[in-house]
Amino acid sequence: MQKIHISELAKYVGQTITLSGWLYNKRSSGKIRFVILRDGTGILQCIVFKGNVSEEIFNLADRLGQESSIEITGTVKEEKRAPGGFEMDVTDLKLISEAHEYPITPKEHGIEFLMDIRHLWLRSSRQVAIMRVRHRIIKAIRDFFDNRGFTLMDAPILTPAACEGTSTLFETPYFDLGKAYLTQSGQLYAEAGAMALGKVYSFGPTFRAEKSKTRRHLTEFWMVEPEVAFNDLYDNMDLAEEFLEYIVQTVLSERAEELKSLERNTSFLEKVKRPFPRIHYDEAVEILKKNGIDFEYGNDLGGTDETVISNQYDRPVMVHHYPVEVKAFYMKRDPNEPSKAMAVDVLAPEGYGEIIGGSQREDNLDLLLQRIKEHNLPQKAFDWYLDLRKYGSVPHSGFGLGIERTVAWICGLEHIRETIPFPRMIYRNTP
Amino acid sequence: MQKIHISELAKYVGQTITLSGWLYNKRSSGKIRFVILRDGTGILQCIVFKGNVSEEIFNLADRLGQESSIEITGTVKEEKRAPGGFEMDVTDLKLISEAHEYPITPKEHGIEFLMDIRHLWLRSSRQVAIMRVRHRIIKAIRDFFDNRGFTLMDAPILTPAACEGTSTLFETPYFDLGKAYLTQSGQLYAEAGAMALGKVYSFGPTFRAEKSKTRRHLTEFWMVEPEVAFNDLYDNMDLAEEFLEYIVQTVLSERAEELKSLERNTSFLEKVKRPFPRIHYDEAVEILKKNGIDFEYGNDLGGTDETVISNQYDRPVMVHHYPVEVKAFYMKRDPNEPSKAMAVDVLAPEGYGEIIGGSQREDNLDLLLQRIKEHNLPQKAFDWYLDLRKYGSVPHSGFGLGIERTVAWICGLEHIRETIPFPRMIYRNTP
Repeated sequence: MQKIHISELAKYVGQTITLSGWLYNKRSSGKIRFVILRDGTGILQCIVFKGNVSEEIFNLADRLGQESSIEITGTVKEEKRAPGGFEMDVTDLKLISEAHEYPITPKEHGIEFLMDIRHLWLRSSRQVAIMRVRHRIIKAIRDFFDNRGFTLMDAPILTPAACEGTSTLFETPYFDLGKAYLTQSGQLYAEAGAMALGKVYSFGPTFRAEKSKTRRHLTEFWMVEPEVAFNDLYDNMDLAEEFLEYIVQTVLSERAEELKSLERNTSFLEKVKRPFPRIHYDEAVEILKKNGIDFEYGNDLGGTDETVISNQYDRPVMVHHYPVEVKAFYMKRDPNEPSKAMAVDVLAPEGYGEIIGGSQREDNLDLLLQRIKEHNLPQKAFDWYLDLRKYGSVPHSGFGLGIERTVAWICGLEHIRETIPFPRMIYRNTP
Repeated sequence: MQKIHISELAKYVGQTITLSGWLYNKRSSGKIRFVILRDGTGILQCIVFKGNVSEEIFNLADRLGQESSIEITGTVKEEKRAPGGFEMDVTDLKLISEAHEYPITPKEHGIEFLMDIRHLWLRSSRQVAIMRVRHRIIKAIRDFFDNRGFTLMDAPILTPAACEGTSTLFETPYFDLGKAYLTQSGQLYAEAGAMALGKVYSFGPTFRAEKSKTRRHLTEFWMVEPEVAFNDLYDNMDLAEEFLEYIVQTVLSERAEELKSLERNTSFLEKVKRPFPRIHYDEAVEILKKNGIDFEYGNDLGGTDETVISNQYDRPVMVHHYPVEVKAFYMKRDPNEPSKAMAVDVLAPEGYGEIIGGSQREDNLDLLLQRIKEHNLPQKAFDWYLDLRKYGSVPHSGFGLGIERTVAWICGLEHIRETIPFPRMIYRNTP
């Protein structure tokens, strides 16, 4: 028997069908019981008239607790005023499993309580909407690269060496090989991929054992990292802006209903269209000074600085040419401006801060070796990475986009904890 | 300037274009040098006639070592006999970075040597083909679920409790919360997702700290796990066979060239069409006995047993109703046959063994509690999972498919180590 879902009701108007799901809410009004059904694809108001069903069924509708699982049969009607545009006149109702005292009620709950029952909280319509947006963002990302000739080449999660110090790394014993560390970025591996397949992306979970308790930090988060052989910094910026435009515009058109239910003001999102402003670090510093920010030239941009800068524009802004001191060892210095790295960060509007960080990579073997020494990194751990410069080095660039920050921005969420099914933070690794 | 790739040459026949890439191989013949260029999208034979270029360029073509990076300009010609169907008459050649003594030569190399330089080995045409098939398999998997109303709900990697003993788990210190463990399966979390969104899938890396040194084991591997509310064992089998047929038929048509270059005999793959044979565990045991296998009723099927069974059929075979003793605590017992779990394993043809394992889940709270006790599992760790039965429990089913075993099967590989960019095994976590 073909199962029918709430999302497909338009095909069944006037027909009597059976749906399976959970009681999301209910109301009474004299001889009528309104049963709000959810089935994961949508919400449907089902109307139980006392005269249309047996007394037993009417009493069942009366008695059922929130989140009881039920099978409900009735006739589908169009009803413009109902959420989703349909209603059901119920002729039969069967109980699958009765629930009582479901812990999440329409009243307000504290966030820690909701996080403790994240496995149930996910059933709430707000969380369902966020998960559906998250999925669509991820699909848009993959479609974007798949349609442009990129090959997916996932980086390993277990990595051998603590390349940049162990302080923010999770570590695990690894058989007779000592320790392994959970990856913080797939980039170095993606670079190897780009030398093999030209255009690649890796997409997987990454980890930071950082003691940051902010609303923008998770210890486990997903990241997509494209890497392209023969792309320079400017190609990289072109790719980043085309990419962000595609993601945002796709989600706006494909998840309009969810964004509406999240009460997202989409006016800023609608403006995410190429070209994005591109400003040199020096210009960024000028903006900060003009806005009365006490900023020392040469520093990295902090959260507040990013907000001040992004507030100057109506769309994402790309800041490039950061001082080499604040950027990673593998970034290429601009030959025309050796104090600056050919790096670019993309700052989201509305104070959402950096969502993309990227750069052209150092492709000269000797300069890369020199950087590794300057950063006091263990050269041996990078032998394989240096091979990429030894054998057929080419200019190449890439960037990383954090999925959860992107979800928070597009959904307009205050805190990143709602952007992933089961968030991990320094004080939480359950459920 | 628009970059042109080898995969797009059909659009440029008769035109003079510039390509960037690496010298894959070369040959000499009198006044001709054949430079085989690779750019990640394909291979192209470029012909350098002594009369067409300067002496300097001709000498450069002569001197270049394997994997030197170059920019090459010339006229594109159709040439049916050439790999890819095109050739280039070279008019200019620029060196980007000269390589010498590239460690992988056309001669045979030992596997450990190749694994040590996996970051370079990935450039070989066989590895490129495998990576392109892997990517297409992953895309087919996601498309399959995305086009059928599933929502992606990724499970956490860091999990709180060692649910089934710590012997095969990787563990990491987790701030003040004690230890966290790397997930072995996202299933329990996917079940929570299915109760929220009806049809979900999780897709991510999973980990086994197993001391298995076989050609079928990695310590880090990717798994996709769909979970569907209101699906029973038989719906689950329908889904699994439609899914496998889709993956295999898609890869056959979209990656025919790669399978050919891997010298894959695709006759078995072409037969992967529904319906697949479905046999009860008892029938499987009968087959083993008929084939002279010394098999004790009640045991799990071993690798050899699986091969004997799958050899009876020309397509994947689904074995269901395994003894409860050999299956996980969360699988539902068949009420009509309580000694059997409503489990199904799908065995790939040609001796590739189990690629899918799934079941209908126990949806009765009391029975699930009983199983947890019988298996001596810590009930507290499962409190959240038990909530899924307490609040609106429904019949539900799902399965897991291992990506690397699927890649090995479809590509016809002997060993799983070539199926993932950077494999992790008990004796290897580098590069």
